[in-house]
Amino acid sequence: MRAAIFNGPGIIEVGERPDPVIQEPTDAVVRVVLGCVCGSDLWYYRGESPHAVGSIGHEFIGVVEQVGAGVQGVNPGDLVVAPFIYSDMSCPHCLNGSTISCAAGGNFGNGQIDGGQGEAVRVPLAGSTLVPVPGSGHPDAVLRSLLALSDVMSTGHHVAVVAGVKKGDTVAVVGDGAVGLCAVLASKRLGADRIIALSRHPERQQVAREFGATDIIEARGQEASQAVLELTRGIGADAALECVGTEASIATAFAVARPGSTVGIVGVPHGQVPFAETFFRNTGWRGGPAPARIYIPELLGDVLDRVINPGRVFDYETDLDHVADAYRAMDERRAIKSLVRVGAL
Amino acid sequence: MRAAIFNGPGIIEVGERPDPVIQEPTDAVVRVVLGCVCGSDLWYYRGESPHAVGSIGHEFIGVVEQVGAGVQGVNPGDLVVAPFIYSDMSCPHCLNGSTISCAAGGNFGNGQIDGGQGEAVRVPLAGSTLVPVPGSGHPDAVLRSLLALSDVMSTGHHVAVVAGVKKGDTVAVVGDGAVGLCAVLASKRLGADRIIALSRHPERQQVAREFGATDIIEARGQEASQAVLELTRGIGADAALECVGTEASIATAFAVARPGSTVGIVGVPHGQVPFAETFFRNTGWRGGPAPARIYIPELLGDVLDRVINPGRVFDYETDLDHVADAYRAMDERRAIKSLVRVGAL
Repeated sequence: MRAAIFNGPGIIEVGERPDPVIQEPTDAVVRVVLGCVCGSDLWYYRGESPHAVGSIGHEFIGVVEQVGAGVQGVNPGDLVVAPFIYSDMSCPHCLNGSTISCAAGGNFGNGQIDGGQGEAVRVPLAGSTLVPVPGSGHPDAVLRSLLALSDVMSTGHHVAVVAGVKKGDTVAVVGDGAVGLCAVLASKRLGADRIIALSRHPERQQVAREFGATDIIEARGQEASQAVLELTRGIGADAALECVGTEASIATAFAVARPGSTVGIVGVPHGQVPFAETFFRNTGWRGGPAPARIYIPELLGDVLDRVINPGRVFDYETDLDHVADAYRAMDERRAIKSLVRVGAL
Repeated sequence: MRAAIFNGPGIIEVGERPDPVIQEPTDAVVRVVLGCVCGSDLWYYRGESPHAVGSIGHEFIGVVEQVGAGVQGVNPGDLVVAPFIYSDMSCPHCLNGSTISCAAGGNFGNGQIDGGQGEAVRVPLAGSTLVPVPGSGHPDAVLRSLLALSDVMSTGHHVAVVAGVKKGDTVAVVGDGAVGLCAVLASKRLGADRIIALSRHPERQQVAREFGATDIIEARGQEASQAVLELTRGIGADAALECVGTEASIATAFAVARPGSTVGIVGVPHGQVPFAETFFRNTGWRGGPAPARIYIPELLGDVLDRVINPGRVFDYETDLDHVADAYRAMDERRAIKSLVRVGAL
C-alpha cells in the first residue's frame, strides 16, 4: 500500500509499505477514507521532537476491511472513527477514564504501527478502540467532522472538561490553532456564556466566532492578559484553556484564570508552569492527551445531529500523493488544519 | 499587651505591643486564648523566607472583647475561631470560594496586623472572618481541636478536597507534619478506604494511625514511590496529597498519583512541578492556601460532636513567655506542632 513516510525533519514522502494484515485476533484492518495532519505532527516535522522514520499520522476515519476472530462490536464494512491511540478499555486506567495510560495501548504512526496518513491501518485492540458510525450516506461535511473527533475535537473537549467548564461560565481560550478553536466549540457546547478567544488571524477569528466565541482579543502576552482581566472586571476567567504549549501561552493562561480555578492544558508542554506564583492564587492545572475513545461516542451523536461541526477547522485539503503539501501548509501557517483524502467511502 | 515578636531569623522574643483598639467599624478586638506555631512560620524563623520584624502568628482562638459598630454576627463574650486570613466573604473571589484572594482581605501577624501569638488581636472584617463557637464549657481537648481549624486542619481538609478524595478512595499522603497528619484525618472523614501515610517518625506514625492511616511507608524518594505503587497494584493512588513543599516531596506525590488524578498540593512550594512528565499521564495539580473560613463551619460541627480531634497534632505546649521554645521544638523536630497557651477562657 501507499503511505506517507517521515524521512527526517521537513521530509515527508509517499512510499510503499507492506499491506497491513491481521496479526492478532484482536486486530482489524481499516481502509482509510480521510486522514489529516495534527499540530503535534509539526513538532517532529520541524525537528523539534524526535520521531521514528516510517509511517505517520494518528487521526483517521475509514471502513473496516477485515477483523480478527476476537474482535467484537466492529464488523467489516463499518465506517469507523479511530481515536488517536488504541486501548483495551478494560484495564484499571481505561476504566478510570485514562485511556492514554492503557498498559496494552499505544500510538498509531510511530514507526511500528501503521499511521493514519496511509491507505490502510492495522488497528490493535480494534473492538475496544474503533467507534462505528451509525447510519450511512453521510455527507462530506459530516465525514470531516467525524474525522475531527479522532483527536482535535476530543482534545478541545478534554481541555474544557478538565478545566470544569460549565453552564454560564466565562471561558478564555489561549491558542487559535485547530485545538483552540475546538475548545471554543466544546465550551459553547458545555454551556459557557462568554467565550474569549485570543486570536490574531482574521480567518481563525471567523471560525472562533462561528464556534461560539463572544469576544476576540488580538493582543499577546501581558497585554492580552490585561485585556481578559478588563473584560472580566478584574476577576479573571472561570476557566482558562491552554491550547498551545509554549511557556508564553501557559503564562497567559495562568494570568487570566480566576483564583481557585483549574487551568486546562492540552498544548504539549514546551515550557514550565509558573508554580509558586499560581499556588498562592489556588490556580492549579489539569490536562494532557485526551481520552478520545471515551469522548467520541458522546460527541458523535452531536456531529450526526448537526449540533457541532468541528470539521470546519479543515481549511486546506489534498490527497495522499500531496501529503507533503498538507504539512507545508500548516507549517507555513497557511492552513489551520490540513485534511488528506485517502480513499473512497 | 505582650506578644511574640520576630526580630530576625532564629530570634523570637516576647515584647510589648500597643493594645489593639477598634480602628474601623468592621473591626473586633479578640483576647487570645490559644495560639500556635505553623510549619510555615519556620520558613522565616530559619531565614528561608523574608518576614517583617514585628508581631507573628496567624492561628488563634479567643474571646471577643469589643466589636465595631458595623460588625454583625459576632458579639463580645463569643468564643471564636479565627481563620488564618481575614476576608469580606462578599467579593467575587470569596463568593467563588477563594477567600485567600479576597481583595479586602489580609494576613495576621505580618508586621502590620497583630499576630495570634500575642495577648490580643485587632481582627479586621470581623463579622465575615471570625467563626463563633456555639455552646460553652468546652473541655481543653475540644479547644485544641478548635484551634487546629484555624489553619492546619482546614489545610489538611483543603488538600483532600482539591485532590477530589471521595468514598472508597486510596489516598497517599506525602509529609507527616501536622498538615500531612490532618490530611490523613480529612481523607478518612471524606470516606477514603485506604490511606497510605509516608512517615518515618514513630510518634507521627502513631498519630497517623489514630487519624485513619491504614498503611505506613518509611522509605523516601523513589523507594517510597515504588512502595506505594506496589501497595496499589501498580496503579497509583486515587489521590496523592503533597503536604511538604520541597521538590523531592512534590516529585514523590506526582510519582504515586494514578494517571488522570489531581495531585493536591498545600506545602508552600520550594521546588518545581515535573510538568512535561506528568502531562502525558494526565496528572495535574490543584491546591494553595486553604479557604479556611469556608471550611471551618463544616469542620466545627465534627469537632464539637467529637467526630474528629485534629488537636491531637499538638504534642508540645508552653505559654507566651516561652514562645521561643515553641519555635525551637518544631525547628528541631522535637514537636509535631507547638501550642501556646496565652490567656484564660
